[in-house]
Amino acid sequence: MAVKKFRVIKPEIRVLGVDDGVFTSRSKGLVPVVGVVFRGGYWLDGVMRTNVKIDGLDATKKISSMIINSSHYKQLRVIMLNGITFAGFNVVDIKKLNAKTKLPVIAVTREKPNFKEIREALKNLPKSDERWKTIKNAGKVYEVFTRNEKEKVYMQICGILEEDAKKILQLTSTRSNIPEALRVAHLIASGITTI
Amino acid sequence: MAVKKFRVIKPEIRVLGVDDGVFTSRSKGLVPVVGVVFRGGYWLDGVMRTNVKIDGLDATKKISSMIINSSHYKQLRVIMLNGITFAGFNVVDIKKLNAKTKLPVIAVTREKPNFKEIREALKNLPKSDERWKTIKNAGKVYEVFTRNEKEKVYMQICGILEEDAKKILQLTSTRSNIPEALRVAHLIASGITTI
Repeated sequence: MAVKKFRVIKPEIRVLGVDDGVFTSRSKGLVPVVGVVFRGGYWLDGVMRTNVKIDGLDATKKISSMIINSSHYKQLRVIMLNGITFAGFNVVDIKKLNAKTKLPVIAVTREKPNFKEIREALKNLPKSDERWKTIKNAGKVYEVFTRNEKEKVYMQICGILEEDAKKILQLTSTRSNIPEALRVAHLIASGITTI
Repeated sequence: MAVKKFRVIKPEIRVLGVDDGVFTSRSKGLVPVVGVVFRGGYWLDGVMRTNVKIDGLDATKKISSMIINSSHYKQLRVIMLNGITFAGFNVVDIKKLNAKTKLPVIAVTREKPNFKEIREALKNLPKSDERWKTIKNAGKVYEVFTRNEKEKVYMQICGILEEDAKKILQLTSTRSNIPEALRVAHLIASGITTI
């Protein structure tokens, strides 16, 4: 899919932040994944949810379906993920997610991804080559300063220009150094799984 | 418990908004109830969750435990409920909730409660007298103008002065005519149950 070039980024741009809930690592089962719709960096407009398998291979498909089937889909302008691995090593292929949803994707992490460690950890899982390929498919890791010169985060992008993605992260990181939609998605996903 | 008199209501007062998820009426089972911690009317600080029985009698106990066992408990200054009935007619006794949590309680509704209709509906349920007593126990219904002179909501209170409760509703209703913590609790509770 072509890269979306934003003519203008509105302060109230509808963004989706996606994060997963807590779970016991190396266990089996489903983990909730929550999508939070924000207007820019201030107002929560909606919440959606799906479940993905721990260390499974269904995250791309499940998250795409969650978004496409949501009543908020038509308002959304960009998808932001908390990294590309959910529920352990259930890897999201950001190119496929972009193609399926026709929306730009920005995967954000606070720490720089350590690919050596990831590749090592993958060895213990079935289909480790497929997972590794999906991880590499997310492409270049960019540094972004969000709230100020000291608070650096990392992003991988698909279907969006580096400059536009940076502007969106800066606009929406109102309360911490990550976009508010991602900060809140984390709080909700964690909060609903600790019963 | 004595009525809490606020010397000053800080703009960043920690409030909890509690609402329930969607469910098929007259079915059986559990419904998620979500508590959302807000700093005043702007920032989401945390999310908690419990489950209550449809038309059950456990809402007061479950919601009290959820709050007392939360890591946010000590920061909270007031509890706000979306009405006093959860998951159908699982009624919260706001006096008991106040006594158990030692926090003021404000139950907020957009529509004026129609007690005649409620009493009628209760007749189809077991322990209807007990439920009715709990509903009456919530006391007087006050009118409050939140964002402006046109947007009126209704509240029942326990452990707080009418004037303080009104001020808190006005301070925290930043985005609609109900407190932001309640608006967001509704979006989360609905969002996580529509899988």
